[in-house]
Amino acid sequence: MHNIVCIGAGKLANHLMPALEREGYDIVQVYSRTEASAKSLAVHLHNATFTTDLSKIQQGADLYIFSIKDDAVEQVAQQVAFLENGKSVFVHTSGILPLNAIPFNRRGIFYPLQTFSASHPVDWKNTPMLITAETQEITTSLTSLAEKISNLVYQVGDKDRAVLHLGAVFANNFTNHMLTLAESICNEHHVSFDILKPIIRETVVKALDVGPRNSQTGPAIRGDQHTIEKHLELLAEHPQLRELYQKITESIEKASR
Amino acid sequence: MHNIVCIGAGKLANHLMPALEREGYDIVQVYSRTEASAKSLAVHLHNATFTTDLSKIQQGADLYIFSIKDDAVEQVAQQVAFLENGKSVFVHTSGILPLNAIPFNRRGIFYPLQTFSASHPVDWKNTPMLITAETQEITTSLTSLAEKISNLVYQVGDKDRAVLHLGAVFANNFTNHMLTLAESICNEHHVSFDILKPIIRETVVKALDVGPRNSQTGPAIRGDQHTIEKHLELLAEHPQLRELYQKITESIEKASR
Repeated sequence: MHNIVCIGAGKLANHLMPALEREGYDIVQVYSRTEASAKSLAVHLHNATFTTDLSKIQQGADLYIFSIKDDAVEQVAQQVAFLENGKSVFVHTSGILPLNAIPFNRRGIFYPLQTFSASHPVDWKNTPMLITAETQEITTSLTSLAEKISNLVYQVGDKDRAVLHLGAVFANNFTNHMLTLAESICNEHHVSFDILKPIIRETVVKALDVGPRNSQTGPAIRGDQHTIEKHLELLAEHPQLRELYQKITESIEKASR
Repeated sequence: MHNIVCIGAGKLANHLMPALEREGYDIVQVYSRTEASAKSLAVHLHNATFTTDLSKIQQGADLYIFSIKDDAVEQVAQQVAFLENGKSVFVHTSGILPLNAIPFNRRGIFYPLQTFSASHPVDWKNTPMLITAETQEITTSLTSLAEKISNLVYQVGDKDRAVLHLGAVFANNFTNHMLTLAESICNEHHVSFDILKPIIRETVVKALDVGPRNSQTGPAIRGDQHTIEKHLELLAEHPQLRELYQKITESIEKASR
């Protein structure tokens, strides 16, 4: 595998393509629906042209990487079925879509279990790469590719990858949202969110040290109804947030039984 | 302030008293309801006796620190009202109780905004200490005491402290619970929770770098209903967890509007 075509130019593509290029791979073309995003990624790569026309995607590349929204993968893959040649490998990068979401013979999944934001660099060496493929030969090729950029490469099946994707939603998306809500509460009352930053850092350090179950503290696990009532009073003007507070509190109580 | 009596022998007391002793303070007595916990803390301190009898708490110490469950502070403080002498200072360590929860003239609050577990050491220098007191003189004394152990000392009122306490419930308690749920999901499906650890570390690094609002990723903020449905299917046997997933997803959608 040497020549790569990138179908998509979102956050993942913008982090992954430069990382692959740094390891000596040739990104030869970038496709995106909009010229602005296709061009914006292509200009950062040495040998990439760009297109916004699926029918103009070049044939015969070693590897095609679909790095687009999960919802769009199946439809776009069908539109580029003409690329099938029995030699090229086609992968998607989704944690939740099965292998058969793309209709190619030589197909695989190249899923980085990480959270990507435009303005924040990615530590690829510590990003788990979850590999699935149609054949052992393709698994081996994709594993080699993944090992160029990461020290954490795993071969997993569709079910395990979906479980890890769900776990990551709790571990990252929901966790991050709790931080967003904490910041909103501080902002609303004109209190500095900075004061919470040490406990945010310590939360993860401790959870990874002794395990999250052993790390749980606070009014919910103590059964401290008086404190819970005071918190709900502070949230009086936010009925949805009150309800969320109550649901998570119940979930903590249940998990501690 | 030199001689300190510690009323309570829980997780906070077990971390705080040795920290104060290291800075030269004399912990002269430890009270706890149970002899085992009173003794267990006292033996780790150089000059501390212990008691399980509130009426035997010694009089005339410079500082009395109530480090007991929020629910118990008011009642216990009333039971030791005989300690009032117009000179000693009395503080509680609660983030949510007001200053007047303890019925003494010279009173204050000495609240470390941190999560404490028995088996994990505390980084006191980076633990915010929130100080409230009845008079400026006591505020100054407690601030000096706090600055001995921490680089992050803040003077705050009851309302701001309660807001930060609520913020900390989201930033720590709820965040940690999301990690517990992620681990449970992995365990149930016999997938290694270790694979999620890099994204857990990155979650906090990124949220503190670019802010949690700019860090949000995942199906909820993308409006990716297909992925959300697949996650809910994986949670089919856990109706409470399904509901929690849906409520947090709605909250993320709302926050992104």
